Amino acid sequence: MSEVVSYRPAPSELAYTFGGREAVRRVKPGTIVELYTEDCFGGRVRDVGDLPSVVCEFPYLNPVTGPLHVEGAEPGDTLAVHFVEIQPARDWAVSSTFPHFGALTTTHTTAMLHEPLEELVWRYDVDVAAGTVTYHARRGDLSVALPLDPMHGTAGVAPGAFESRMTIVPDVHGGNMDTPELRAGVTAYFGVNVPGALFAVGDGHCRQGDGEVCGTAVEAAMNTVVILDLIKGAATPTPRFETDDALMSAGSARPLEDAYRMSQHDLVTWSATLTGLDVLDAYQLLSQAGTAPVGNVCDPNYTMLAKVDKKYLGGGATAYEGMHARLRAEARDYLSAR
Amino acid sequence: MSEVVSYRPAPSELAYTFGGREAVRRVKPGTIVELYTEDCFGGRVRDVGDLPSVVCEFPYLNPVTGPLHVEGAEPGDTLAVHFVEIQPARDWAVSSTFPHFGALTTTHTTAMLHEPLEELVWRYDVDVAAGTVTYHARRGDLSVALPLDPMHGTAGVAPGAFESRMTIVPDVHGGNMDTPELRAGVTAYFGVNVPGALFAVGDGHCRQGDGEVCGTAVEAAMNTVVILDLIKGAATPTPRFETDDALMSAGSARPLEDAYRMSQHDLVTWSATLTGLDVLDAYQLLSQAGTAPVGNVCDPNYTMLAKVDKKYLGGGATAYEGMHARLRAEARDYLSAR
Amino acid sequence: MSEVVSYRPAPSELAYTFGGREAVRRVKPGTIVELYTEDCFGGRVRDVGDLPSVVCEFPYLNPVTGPLHVEGAEPGDTLAVHFVEIQPARDWAVSSTFPHFGALTTTHTTAMLHEPLEELVWRYDVDVAAGTVTYHARRGDLSVALPLDPMHGTAGVAPGAFESRMTIVPDVHGGNMDTPELRAGVTAYFGVNVPGALFAVGDGHCRQGDGEVCGTAVEAAMNTVVILDLIKGAATPTPRFETDDALMSAGSARPLEDAYRMSQHDLVTWSATLTGLDVLDAYQLLSQAGTAPVGNVCDPNYTMLAKVDKKYLGGGATAYEGMHARLRAEARDYLSAR
Amino acid sequence: MSEVVSYRPAPSELAYTFGGREAVRRVKPGTIVELYTEDCFGGRVRDVGDLPSVVCEFPYLNPVTGPLHVEGAEPGDTLAVHFVEIQPARDWAVSSTFPHFGALTTTHTTAMLHEPLEELVWRYDVDVAAGTVTYHARRGDLSVALPLDPMHGTAGVAPGAFESRMTIVPDVHGGNMDTPELRAGVTAYFGVNVPGALFAVGDGHCRQGDGEVCGTAVEAAMNTVVILDLIKGAATPTPRFETDDALMSAGSARPLEDAYRMSQHDLVTWSATLTGLDVLDAYQLLSQAGTAPVGNVCDPNYTMLAKVDKKYLGGGATAYEGMHARLRAEARDYLSAR
Repeated sequence: MSEVVSYRPAPSELAYTFGGREAVRRVKPGTIVELYTEDCFGGRVRDVGDLPSVVCEFPYLNPVTGPLHVEGAEPGDTLAVHFVEIQPARDWAVSSTFPHFGALTTTHTTAMLHEPLEELVWRYDVDVAAGTVTYHARRGDLSVALPLDPMHGTAGVAPGAFESRMTIVPDVHGGNMDTPELRAGVTAYFGVNVPGALFAVGDGHCRQGDGEVCGTAVEAAMNTVVILDLIKGAATPTPRFETDDALMSAGSARPLEDAYRMSQHDLVTWSATLTGLDVLDAYQLLSQAGTAPVGNVCDPNYTMLAKVDKKYLGGGATAYEGMHARLRAEARDYLSAR
Repeated sequence: MSEVVSYRPAPSELAYTFGGREAVRRVKPGTIVELYTEDCFGGRVRDVGDLPSVVCEFPYLNPVTGPLHVEGAEPGDTLAVHFVEIQPARDWAVSSTFPHFGALTTTHTTAMLHEPLEELVWRYDVDVAAGTVTYHARRGDLSVALPLDPMHGTAGVAPGAFESRMTIVPDVHGGNMDTPELRAGVTAYFGVNVPGALFAVGDGHCRQGDGEVCGTAVEAAMNTVVILDLIKGAATPTPRFETDDALMSAGSARPLEDAYRMSQHDLVTWSATLTGLDVLDAYQLLSQAGTAPVGNVCDPNYTMLAKVDKKYLGGGATAYEGMHARLRAEARDYLSAR
Repeated sequence: MSEVVSYRPAPSELAYTFGGREAVRRVKPGTIVELYTEDCFGGRVRDVGDLPSVVCEFPYLNPVTGPLHVEGAEPGDTLAVHFVEIQPARDWAVSSTFPHFGALTTTHTTAMLHEPLEELVWRYDVDVAAGTVTYHARRGDLSVALPLDPMHGTAGVAPGAFESRMTIVPDVHGGNMDTPELRAGVTAYFGVNVPGALFAVGDGHCRQGDGEVCGTAVEAAMNTVVILDLIKGAATPTPRFETDDALMSAGSARPLEDAYRMSQHDLVTWSATLTGLDVLDAYQLLSQAGTAPVGNVCDPNYTMLAKVDKKYLGGGATAYEGMHARLRAEARDYLSAR
Repeated sequence: MSEVVSYRPAPSELAYTFGGREAVRRVKPGTIVELYTEDCFGGRVRDVGDLPSVVCEFPYLNPVTGPLHVEGAEPGDTLAVHFVEIQPARDWAVSSTFPHFGALTTTHTTAMLHEPLEELVWRYDVDVAAGTVTYHARRGDLSVALPLDPMHGTAGVAPGAFESRMTIVPDVHGGNMDTPELRAGVTAYFGVNVPGALFAVGDGHCRQGDGEVCGTAVEAAMNTVVILDLIKGAATPTPRFETDDALMSAGSARPLEDAYRMSQHDLVTWSATLTGLDVLDAYQLLSQAGTAPVGNVCDPNYTMLAKVDKKYLGGGATAYEGMHARLRAEARDYLSAR
């Protein structure tokens, strides 16, 4: 079986950018990596009295674990990251409004003359065995058990062009895409921009609504297992995801229609390449068969996915030479051997 | 049982606006209406050789059936439209690219100096018994059977403020929302702006991908049955949908994030009213429990929905005094009596 | 000299839409028309105590004078409207914030959970002789005399496709473009969509900042003189303006970059046609020589202009067969004869 | 008089990011700095046969000169940069279309299925004595002399939050704002994010139309003189400019209305602070007295300015304790002594 590496960062090791950081570990392609990731508040918001604007300090927000240097990764390659497992590390999680953040509030860019919305924290109960996270209203008695559906809001590699970006930003290098589709069982593909790729991950969510409308999800520390592998000589222009059943392309931009355009454009042209379809034929097929899961509508770039069931692509469509199926098998071996 | 009215428009009776037209029929609240609707091309595109820009003439596009005057409907009321059945009227359907229309092409407003994309027509086979619509590539051999999922792209009432709008425009009066959620089993709610509400419907789709990225869906004439009913004294600011399981609000605007904001804002405030939750508590709950189905990203306004399972609203949330459940029961009676 | 027609609407004659109305007068091409236009509040906001949301009633806002039927105008022609004179009718004017209207506030479409900004009215002193409008702070002593620069926020023709649009909406038919460029001395060109063109005008501003950021300008009733003329067989895809020195194209859309794109696209392609330049050569020239005056960033569509000095187009560029120069001469005759 | 420092970078010293670079020089506050800046193509596009996509290599585009470390500058301070002189360094300049760049073309984010527009280069004659730059059509005989109006498209400081950004990006740290307002005589204010501020400047334009619609201006190497000074303890949230007559705030964001909102919001609140006006009083005054010069509508963020004549702010409004007037005087001394 593949080599297994474990890494739990000390608080001082947490990273706040993609790019501009030294690797914390070097791993070979194919390595299984067991990671701990802190929540987006750095673990400082523990109860409803812990206001993020008080207990957190900009820019020490949305820490990621990493970056990991994957040996042999060079610009022009693609990093494959299979998410084997994403497990909440605590029996609670938190969410909040945050001044000038969220889709239904004045922000730094959609700048208005209103006073900020009130800053409030909600604490959720996490029950991994029952598969639930439980919401409690702050100003009433309603409690609601929602399905646990763990995912990572933030994952990606170092950007190109000598850039270093805050972890809160999603872009073609990945970053804070905040899509519920980034759950266990998925293989994510990122274009490599710098030697070693420099993968990092964080911002676990016990679950998230489409768009993360208030600006935060059910935020949690996670114990996460990934397999990192490499496809040499294959470029990936924007993050892509693969499951057993579906292919997805992510677009991150503003306005939101440009996130939609980027994601649809990539899935149309990628599908055409995989199937040999004419581009307009692929455009038509995706127009009827595709879906458009919404990631975030609150971050510095908004994120949307374009998604299609593989079975609608005519069967012959194998992405990245079958990487997903191989990693899926490795994940099963790892989990059954544990 | 309720009164049943049938109406099949002559070609000359088709309408091309919401507002600015006399009613073709007057019905009492509670009436079951059996309708025929033409496809968005007025039935003129029948095969791959029928280019829409040649066989169709602006503004005679996207015809709707109606409007129907609902007796007693006054501004400030809400029209409830339960979709009992939506059945393709033919064993074929069509789709196309269209110059200056679609999400991945220069348009009238996203104006660029490119030549238009090539105009191409695709003809689909419709098999109601098998529940499929079959795509055929124009420039290759691939054929794909996709699930039949009939819906109406266009439905709504006359707008307020003395306006008359092309049927291709979605806005707070409904119109060309182009959302796959408007299928049989749904009750749609529209705020009434003029006496009689003046409901009209058209633009049937055998199915549609999220966003209708190429600008058209699998376009088909439909035999459709609706029940029209009235909620007096209840205002509805933007179209809302209800199924047995879920509540939805529609937002239509540009840029796309504003369609998202409108829909989320309405669902948050509506949920707060229905449940008695504080608005920020509802904002938080929807942020984690809500979804955001994409309607269209190609029409003069883009459309998104905000959607939540009723079970996450704590059980006591009954919309419009139980109208959906009553219409659902009537629909069952009608279908079993037929 | 040309025929002169005077028209002062009774309050009951004011119009609130473009389209959907009978003409109030029929005039021959070349007629000089003396008009009175009410302010956007219908004259009901007279002092700081008159809150628009109290004294005005939706949809009776932004009244226009007209429509005027120009004999012989047919779809495919262009209506030329030369603004001879725009004179404030009173020695005061008003402006206000308005709930859910303006660029720095939550609106119906950029929907947020904030309470509306406070509704406040400002009354300006208008001194035509001195050429000033004087601002007075509501909560302090500052008074500022600003240059009087009268213009019309709203002017246009009936839209096509059987539409009727609220006067507050700008689009390709004109409407509420709210650009300071629509002042005396300008010839505006509108594509004719219905027989008679059905021109209407209103929403006088004593002056306006770029974008009308708070949602209203220095609003005033006006005594306005226009010459209405016709260019047969010449289509105009979006409103265009001409002065002695410059050509302009207007674009109205959301997001604001699409208003920019529409206006630039039209000016690039129009300039290429007028000069015989290759389109990419015109694109380059406008990229260096053009300006982009901002109209409104608060109405249902935003408006931007693309503008270029005629002298940069190489001298031979005469638009609409010299219509502007002829109307300018007629205007001088009229003014000197008065 | 102030100390004068001269710096002409070797090609290997050019920078391609704001942030992530060591300073090339350390200067004291008040230093006059004589700089040479390369054009956005790194000087490699010299004639119409030099296609940028062939002779330039990503990411070695849009080089800047610097960064300069200003002693004593700390986060929370403001860097004042007075532009004393901007002189074209050659008697020619170039412009071009560029695949996937510009406002009227498919781009990486406004992703469409069109082939790119043709890549073309235009070479301008620069005549500093005559004050002209002369355009020559590529496919016709038209030549047009346009006024020389030299400016810098790119100027700014290192961003905060450990970020490093490509020089092509404008944001709150400055960067590639591409506004014609950044000409000689202006003092620009940038909030300091890192010790030493790390100022850099480049991308000289002989002139530019509003929005830089084709994606490039009349691109030129420049000999530029600036004075760098420091305002301790004064924060600046987004770049601001001051001339003898006017105050300006810059906003950089997408969609374009958010660039408008950011700039207007900053100028409204800054004006209120400077004058003691209530914020709504300032909002009203700017709504009528303000202008909105368009910067770029082609870069990764779009840029707009909000601008107001100081005389409309009531006379008492002195920004940054009179820094502009002092630097203006120093500039005069320097120029007269030379």
